[in-house]
Amino acid sequence: MSDLITQLNWRYATKKFDTTKKLTSEQLSILTEALRLAPSSFGLQPWGFVVVTDPTIRIQLKEAAWGQAQVTDASELIVLCRKTEFGEKNVIEFVQDIAAQRGIPAEGMAEYQKMMTDSVTSMSATDLSAWTTHQLYLSLGVVLSAAAMENIDACPMEGFDKAKFDEILGLKEKGLSSCVICSVGFRASDDEYASLKKVRYSAEKVITKI
Amino acid sequence: MSDLITQLNWRYATKKFDTTKKLTSEQLSILTEALRLAPSSFGLQPWGFVVVTDPTIRIQLKEAAWGQAQVTDASELIVLCRKTEFGEKNVIEFVQDIAAQRGIPAEGMAEYQKMMTDSVTSMSATDLSAWTTHQLYLSLGVVLSAAAMENIDACPMEGFDKAKFDEILGLKEKGLSSCVICSVGFRASDDEYASLKKVRYSAEKVITKI
Repeated sequence: MSDLITQLNWRYATKKFDTTKKLTSEQLSILTEALRLAPSSFGLQPWGFVVVTDPTIRIQLKEAAWGQAQVTDASELIVLCRKTEFGEKNVIEFVQDIAAQRGIPAEGMAEYQKMMTDSVTSMSATDLSAWTTHQLYLSLGVVLSAAAMENIDACPMEGFDKAKFDEILGLKEKGLSSCVICSVGFRASDDEYASLKKVRYSAEKVITKI
Repeated sequence: MSDLITQLNWRYATKKFDTTKKLTSEQLSILTEALRLAPSSFGLQPWGFVVVTDPTIRIQLKEAAWGQAQVTDASELIVLCRKTEFGEKNVIEFVQDIAAQRGIPAEGMAEYQKMMTDSVTSMSATDLSAWTTHQLYLSLGVVLSAAAMENIDACPMEGFDKAKFDEILGLKEKGLSSCVICSVGFRASDDEYASLKKVRYSAEKVITKI
């Protein structure tokens, strides 16, 4: 079948990383580039991605992640963050970036800008937080696909104290808040989970065709 | 760089599909297989995916999606759905599937089963709905990556009436509810959006290294 299907079968949520194996800078660039290029609603990119290599900081993060060894033992830990305040100014920033990158006047996109602004500002704080978080999970799916394609192991994790992560990483000052995290690196040769048969429901169970 | 990066640069949210070009059954299988193999929290797969080809149903769905032409004009419309009731019985079903597929006794996973059950049943209905929705967005990221890798065009969409979609597709009876939709097919040669420069913020703006 396709390369990605082969690689999705190859990947698994790596529990034990080889602490001696590090991503090359090119490998890390592929992952950050996949995140940067990930689709998002209207293309608004309501996000920031923090790549943590620093071992001292990762010891603190591990404590805030129920001691999960992947936080410190993988080559890097990626913290996928949503923008906490997202409103008209972000839409304007995006439209100005489009204008600059495409070499067209921002004024010509006034209607488009209004439509996006109306959409974003009509949401309650709760809905806005949910909407931005959705975009981060979408980007997680893209970076996990990119890692799999490059034979890079990964372990996405939801079990961590978001408030503590935000504090340790100074995310509030950056206007960000952590949504989900993902360790990336290479599996330890003795990770017993590596050899287990991947379990997914049959296509009959999860795919319906109409 | 990598193939996926090349393809993420190639892809865009296709606005106008070529109504005469259809996915082959192999191409469609790659997309549904990518969805089936997508990672999810604990591997619990709280989802179902509905692939809609039927033109009559798609006319109804288009009306419930603010008339967006992609709903009817693409080769297929994929509706990514979360399971609406997710609790202990789903965890048991998953553990029994692991046991069957790996040829091991389910009893040996009692502790693992309890941990997952505690996690799932400790969530409020609102949190559970949010958590399942997150998994669907993750799977959307995977299928968009798979489509890009296969030179299949796609357009993810959030703008649709979920209640109406659920009703038209009889999702309630299946224990499912629509989260997000994605048209897949091939761009029309005159889709003016195809030639626009992709706009993403610079790496300096969205990637922080610590």
